[in-house]
Amino acid sequence: MNQVHEHTLHLDSNTRHEARRRLLSVRGHIEGILKMLEDDPYCIDVLRQIKAVEGALDKAGELVLQSHLKHHVTNAAQRGDADQLVEELMEVLKYR
Amino acid sequence: MNQVHEHTLHLDSNTRHEARRRLLSVRGHIEGILKMLEDDPYCIDVLRQIKAVEGALDKAGELVLQSHLKHHVTNAAQRGDADQLVEELMEVLKYR
Amino acid sequence: MNQVHEHTLHLDSNTRHEARRRLLSVRGHIEGILKMLEDDPYCIDVLRQIKAVEGALDKAGELVLQSHLKHHVTNAAQRGDADQLVEELMEVLKYR
Amino acid sequence: MNQVHEHTLHLDSNTRHEARRRLLSVRGHIEGILKMLEDDPYCIDVLRQIKAVEGALDKAGELVLQSHLKHHVTNAAQRGDADQLVEELMEVLKYR
Repeated sequence: MNQVHEHTLHLDSNTRHEARRRLLSVRGHIEGILKMLEDDPYCIDVLRQIKAVEGALDKAGELVLQSHLKHHVTNAAQRGDADQLVEELMEVLKYR
Repeated sequence: MNQVHEHTLHLDSNTRHEARRRLLSVRGHIEGILKMLEDDPYCIDVLRQIKAVEGALDKAGELVLQSHLKHHVTNAAQRGDADQLVEELMEVLKYR
Repeated sequence: MNQVHEHTLHLDSNTRHEARRRLLSVRGHIEGILKMLEDDPYCIDVLRQIKAVEGALDKAGELVLQSHLKHHVTNAAQRGDADQLVEELMEVLKYR
Repeated sequence: MNQVHEHTLHLDSNTRHEARRRLLSVRGHIEGILKMLEDDPYCIDVLRQIKAVEGALDKAGELVLQSHLKHHVTNAAQRGDADQLVEELMEVLKYR
């Protein structure tokens, strides 16, 4: 939670709720893996679950990214912060 | 949690505890993102956190993978289940 | 080479030359792997080379992406094709 | 082509030929992108092509990995080089 931006570009409310919904499901999934790990699981079963959670996180991230592109990036030239937005995006997109 | 294998190849105890420790930390991180999403976060800050969680999950997965390779895959020819183990591995490794 | 867009959004000239330079190097790298494969290489050496080539392609792609974001996406609202640009981007960014 | 292993674990002949065939196709694909870049391409078309090439490289790598697992890793305990093979694998699999 290191960098907090003070500008007024916030995640739109619909995406925020949908991302929240998905992350609640991710948390439940993590709980399931933690429960597996109290038992004696087969390694591959753990790897499958971790992969599934990463897929769910990817989807949540895609929602946020799409909303950001639509609401904040495509009008950055008008607002005058295009360079900063591009730089931030490249950092976040560098290997996902 | 669809496929449960009945064989006797279990995650070794040290790795299991370490994976558990890391997934507890991942769960805490997810809680943090959920809290962010109750407020009005900046999209890029959410994306950074999701990426960090995926990195932590990758690390947990690598521990489990390494243990599986060491304890179950390198001796599969002796045990006689090499084909099955290779197939499972390829499925889990296909795009991570 | 399936989809050719008829609009006027072209890759800027500097990035085009730099991407070309990098892809020429990638081609040379591929030639090297092809030569390895005429001999009797060790599997892991082949995998290392493939991974290195993918890293070089990632870098070339990042240059093109950055240029696209800067020159075409951040002013899409003014031009009026924001929805199309976001959709295309999401398709290309979906797991890279 | 930095590390050449002196051991006797070579890529099996079928996989070697199939990997070669695929890398020849990758080279042709790269040539196509180089030709695109002599013209005035649309950025997204370049990104799509780079992504397609990376997909083809992934497939070639998967063939080599599968062959390595089957022919060299699953019998490593018998041969006595399990630790080295696992270490090499983890390095190559770390973010693909």
